[in-house]
Order: sequence, then structure tokens, then C-alpha cells
Amino acid sequence: MKLSPYPVIRLRPKGQARTVRHGFPWVYDNELVTDRRTRKLTPGSIAILEDGERQPMALVAVNPESRIMARVLDRDCGAVIGADWLRARIERAQALRARLYDAPYYRLVHAEADGLPGVVIDRFGDTAVIQPNAAWAELLLEELAEALVDVTGVRNVLKNAGGRARALEGLDDASAVLRGDMPGAPVDVPMNGAIYKADLEGGQKTGLFYDQRPNHAFGARLAKGARVLDVFSHVGGFSLAALAEGATSALAVDGSAPALALAEAGACASGVEASFATRRGDAFDVLGELAQEGARFDLVICDPPAFAPSKKALEAGLRAYERVARMAAPLVAEGGFLGLCSCSHAVDLQKFRTASLRGIGRAGREGALIHTGFAGPDHPLHPHLAESGYLKALFFRL
Amino acid sequence: MKLSPYPVIRLRPKGQARTVRHGFPWVYDNELVTDRRTRKLTPGSIAILEDGERQPMALVAVNPESRIMARVLDRDCGAVIGADWLRARIERAQALRARLYDAPYYRLVHAEADGLPGVVIDRFGDTAVIQPNAAWAELLLEELAEALVDVTGVRNVLKNAGGRARALEGLDDASAVLRGDMPGAPVDVPMNGAIYKADLEGGQKTGLFYDQRPNHAFGARLAKGARVLDVFSHVGGFSLAALAEGATSALAVDGSAPALALAEAGACASGVEASFATRRGDAFDVLGELAQEGARFDLVICDPPAFAPSKKALEAGLRAYERVARMAAPLVAEGGFLGLCSCSHAVDLQKFRTASLRGIGRAGREGALIHTGFAGPDHPLHPHLAESGYLKALFFRL
Repeated sequence: MKLSPYPVIRLRPKGQARTVRHGFPWVYDNELVTDRRTRKLTPGSIAILEDGERQPMALVAVNPESRIMARVLDRDCGAVIGADWLRARIERAQALRARLYDAPYYRLVHAEADGLPGVVIDRFGDTAVIQPNAAWAELLLEELAEALVDVTGVRNVLKNAGGRARALEGLDDASAVLRGDMPGAPVDVPMNGAIYKADLEGGQKTGLFYDQRPNHAFGARLAKGARVLDVFSHVGGFSLAALAEGATSALAVDGSAPALALAEAGACASGVEASFATRRGDAFDVLGELAQEGARFDLVICDPPAFAPSKKALEAGLRAYERVARMAAPLVAEGGFLGLCSCSHAVDLQKFRTASLRGIGRAGREGALIHTGFAGPDHPLHPHLAESGYLKALFFRL
Repeated sequence: MKLSPYPVIRLRPKGQARTVRHGFPWVYDNELVTDRRTRKLTPGSIAILEDGERQPMALVAVNPESRIMARVLDRDCGAVIGADWLRARIERAQALRARLYDAPYYRLVHAEADGLPGVVIDRFGDTAVIQPNAAWAELLLEELAEALVDVTGVRNVLKNAGGRARALEGLDDASAVLRGDMPGAPVDVPMNGAIYKADLEGGQKTGLFYDQRPNHAFGARLAKGARVLDVFSHVGGFSLAALAEGATSALAVDGSAPALALAEAGACASGVEASFATRRGDAFDVLGELAQEGARFDLVICDPPAFAPSKKALEAGLRAYERVARMAAPLVAEGGFLGLCSCSHAVDLQKFRTASLRGIGRAGREGALIHTGFAGPDHPLHPHLAESGYLKALFFRL
């Protein structure tokens, strides 16, 4: 075997060699021999992972400060993690998206499932936003930006350091412009027949999430001639798609004024501003007010933030999802539709369905489940992390 | 309370009044007071279900010969189960489909979830096919056909008695023409840009299933410029949609000559016969032969019959699904796609995903999961039977 430029780390004799061999992409700190040399590795170092018998298994990115101490980069221990390697991974990721979408607006890289552990890249036309949520990507950020420009031809490359996972990796929250410029105004994003506005400077709170695209599309199929209520609307994901498909009206409810302003700008850009309205406020308060007013809609969608971001918060989260369903169901006209979404990792499909059905039942309504949707195919799941599909959307007919 | 024309049946004192009150649509034989009078009810009789305290709960259809002895028809005990009632249910079901589809080709009634327990109705343009899989619908078949013609305006109404559930209800397997005529030739069914051929006379084996429509559509999105292999193809569901979206070739494999003949006729009707081929044989044999030949495809789909139709058959079924994945994965070109389907009630999503991933892994391949699909929205699920979603489709990128 030729000499490798990379140091070696080793699984404990009883370490989970089998799970790594079977394709699991992570090694936890308690599975590794953590001698002083290993502890001293710079966070983000590339190393060769050996099993307990000193057989090389994979190239990994090491972060002694993270509970996920090693992330598998390549099963070929002779690989060189540099510009060519990064380009090949990005090319492969792009080939999938190019097949799926007509225009370059999508999640280009979805971390482990695209072979770039901890790295998320969203493409907005000639601007790409990198979220380097693992230390190795922070170290190789220049090479990553370069490869990204090479492969995609984007003009602007931004670094978004707002991801919560960065703190677990010991990384800072300093965003930056890596190539080109920060777009001076919200970017136009064509999706599902509408044009959305993404404020890339404002970061996650007013940016744009591509994951709901197929669920927006399904909602829009139900929306022709319908009065639509879009609760937790963010920049108007469900509303604008529904109006583009012929909804007669849409009311977007959100607590964030900047998000609603972007939704309104999107409605104008889509030419549907005449039938679009917004209401700023706490979603639960507004649901209560609308019930008081006797309002009825043909399609009500609730896409709340993660109520159960962790396993600890599971019970409280499920109660919150039930409450959303219970408060939203009375606003749905007879024969109308209710779409309920969860982006909580800790809430699996069955638990979310049960909480939703309980809420609908407590509102004295009954609903057939007509559609179950997940994140779009530009958010692939690593085979060994497939349980982690966080996004679920349930559509009921009441 | 006004006098009801219907007899009364009663839950045992410890019977599951709560589950029925909460919306569960069935009462099992061991939950009912089965006195001689109840046992003597004609299968399919309408009755009033009372709880252990003699409070009326719902109108039900009774079948003393079935393990599901009562099916809830209406929670309004004053309802009259006749022509008007049937019309209202069919109208409500049709309103959903009319919203979802441009043309009248869909599952019009999906049993419990559409308020017509045990009744399945498929619409093929001016022909409708009823599967009366519960005794009450057999008794009211004339009224059902009449209501169906009234609401939809179809010319032909066929009765398909091939459903396996009929035996559990003590019903015969005699199909019939209830209105109009049996179409003299296979019917054209436009779906996903292709035209399929459904032989309604030949019954289920060569008819057409609408449930896979959204999964056919997802496969087709991946198919532009692709070589497609469609294993267990039936009448060409995945092949023809893929060719309509620009696949360069499609090979359909099935054991049934009549199904393949319909697939070929569909390819001609769709104008894609030049790039369509069929191969008749045992799917496992053909998968082995293709591997021997060194064949490679950009998209391979396997949509086998239910390998685990019952819980007893679960383990054997999971092994069969794993085998399908293991034999199909080697035929997928690098960067290509593998779609795996299961229509087994007993196999839940997680078990199916695990078996599929194990098979892909045993073939020495690795795949990211890009899409999980279910039956289309014309196959709604009753809220209390939502676990029973039988159809799952997983798309992997290898």
C-alpha cells in the first residue's frame, strides 16, 4: 500500500466496525481509541479509519470536539480529499437535480446522502449558499467554493453559518461572501408556477426552503377555485403556489413581518397580489380569531416550525401538533381540505398522524387521509439515516 | 325517537363502544351480542347498532357470516340507506376526484374512506366497474348502479366479483353487466401522458390499477433519455409513462402474455412502440438472465405482486423483497435509479425500506433514498384504517 498523507484513527476492539462496513456514515466518540494524538487532531482533519485489527476501512473527517467524531468521506482509503474529489461529488449531485428540475433552483447538496457529510448547498440561479455544518468543510471551504463555481458556473457563493449543527462542531456563526457579491435584493425563485422571493442576506428566517416543494404542489392541486388559509406561511410557500393554480383567495398568517413582506413581494411578482392577503400574529391567536369570526376556507394548511426539535420535547410537541389540528379543522368548510405538516425529527410519521387525527376528532370532524408527502427528491436520504426524514405532510379531506 | 325500519344489534356490555364512538368503522363478531335473532339476519341487512346501555350509536351493515360483523354506514341513526343516500356518497366522492383529475379515469369510490364500506368503484370514461366486496352492497347493487349512473352519467356499469374479500363475506364470484354493455375491446385510459389499455372483461389480471399513478409519474421524471427496465410490468404502467416522458427505451417483463399484449397495444396507442419491448417470463429468471447478459439500465423498477399478503407470510415476503432488490440493483448503471414497490398490507414502510436496503447492500451497491410514494389521492385512507396503506414505492439513486 502506498503511503497516505493522512493520519490514522482506530476503532476500539469492540467498536462498530460492522455498522461502518455496512454503510453507516458516522463513528461516535465512544467507539474510537481516543489517545492523546487523536484528541490533538485539528477539528476537520482527514484521517484513515482502521478497525480494531488495524485494517483500513475508510477515509474520514475527524472532529475530536464533536460527539460524531468521524464522518465517512470515502471508502477508498487511497482517495485524496481535494479539489477534484469535491468537484466529482458536486457533479454527481448536480446530475440528479438537473434530471429532476427545469431550472437551477434546488438543494444541490444534501449532506451525507450526497457524499459530502454535514454540507448543505442551496442553489438560487446564479447564487449558491453553502452551509458548512461540519468542521472538515470549514477547513476546505475555499476549495469547496472553487469546485462549486467550476461545476455549476454560479457567480455568487455565500456562506451561511446560521445552522444550529455548527455549534455542536465547535464552529462559529460568521456568515460570509466567498465569491462574487451578496445579491442586493431578494432573489426571484420560480417554483410551482409562482415566483418566490428569497432574502439570502437575511439568512434562514427569510431565506427559502426547497424541501416543501412537492407538498406545495399537492396543495395547489386542491386549490382551484378555493379559499386558502396558509398558517405559519413564512414567505408564502403554499399560498403562492395555490394562487398560481387558480385559488380565488389566499390568506397568509405568520409571526414574522419580514417573511410576510417577502410573501407580498412574491405575490406581486407572480401577478396574484389582488387575491392575496396577510395577517401578522401568533398563529394560535389568529386561528382562534378566525374561528370567532366564523371564517371558513376550502383549504387550510398549517406548516409550523419544529414543535419537537428533540426527543425530550416529543410529548409537548405532539400536544402542539394536536392543538394545531384541533384549531384548524373548524375553519375547513364541509368537504374541504386540511394540510398539516411537521418538520420535527423526533416525531415519526405514525405519531404525527395520530396526533393530527386526534386533533381533528376533538374538533368534532372526521377526515380521510388523501396524501402523505415528504421532502422533495433534492433532499435525498442516506440509506442508513433514512429514519431521519424529518419532514412530513398529511392532507385530509374533512 | 321516531320508529326506525331497521332491526337493532347491540354491543356486549364490555364491547368497544369507545372505538366506534371515536370513528372506528368496524365491529368484530366477538364484540356483539350474537343472539339467535342477530345470527338470523340476512347478510347485508341494515341495522341500528346500540351500545351496552341500549343507546343507539350508528346505522350499520350486518353480516353474521363475516368476522367484520358490522360496518358503520352512518352515524345518523335516522338515515335511510337508499337511492338518495347512495347518490350523496357518490357525489361527495366524485367531487374529490373532479378536483384532482382532468379526465374521468380514476378510482371513484375507495370503500370505507369514501363512506361506502367494502365498495370499490373504478371509473374508465363512460364505463364504471363496481366491486361490491361487502354483503350490504350486494343486496343494494341495483340501487348502487342506478345512483352511479345518475351521478356520473356513465353508460356502462360492470360488476367485478373477483375480489378476494368477497369470500370472507360469503359472496359468490359471478361478475355481471349491470347497465349498458361490456366494452367489446380494451378501453383506452389516458394517464401520465400515455394511453393505457384496460381489458375490463378479463378482470383484475388484465384490468388496470390506478393506485400507482403518482409513482409512475415520479419514475417518468427520472426517465428522460434513460434506458428503462420495468419488471412485473403488468400492462406497462411504468414503461409507458417513462416513454411518454422521453425514455430512449423500455423493456417490460411479466409472466402474463395477456398483460404484455395490452402493454404493447398501449405502446402503439401512445406512439412509442418503436422504443418498447417486452420479455415474458418469471421475473427472477429474467433478472438473472439480464445480469448474465451484462445488461445495464438507467432506471429499473420492480413492482411485484404482494409477497406478504398476510402477517403469516411476512418473513417470507420480506426475503422476497430483499431478493428483488438484490437481483435488480446490479442492473442499474452507476448514478442510475432503482424503484422498488410493495403492495403487501403486512409489510410496513420501515420493514420494506430495510429489506430493500439490505438487498441493495448485498448486491454491493449503495443508494440514497430520493422518494417515498404511496397510492394516489383517489385511494384515500379512512382515518382509523390509515395504518392499512398497503402500497409503498421507494426510489433510490445508486
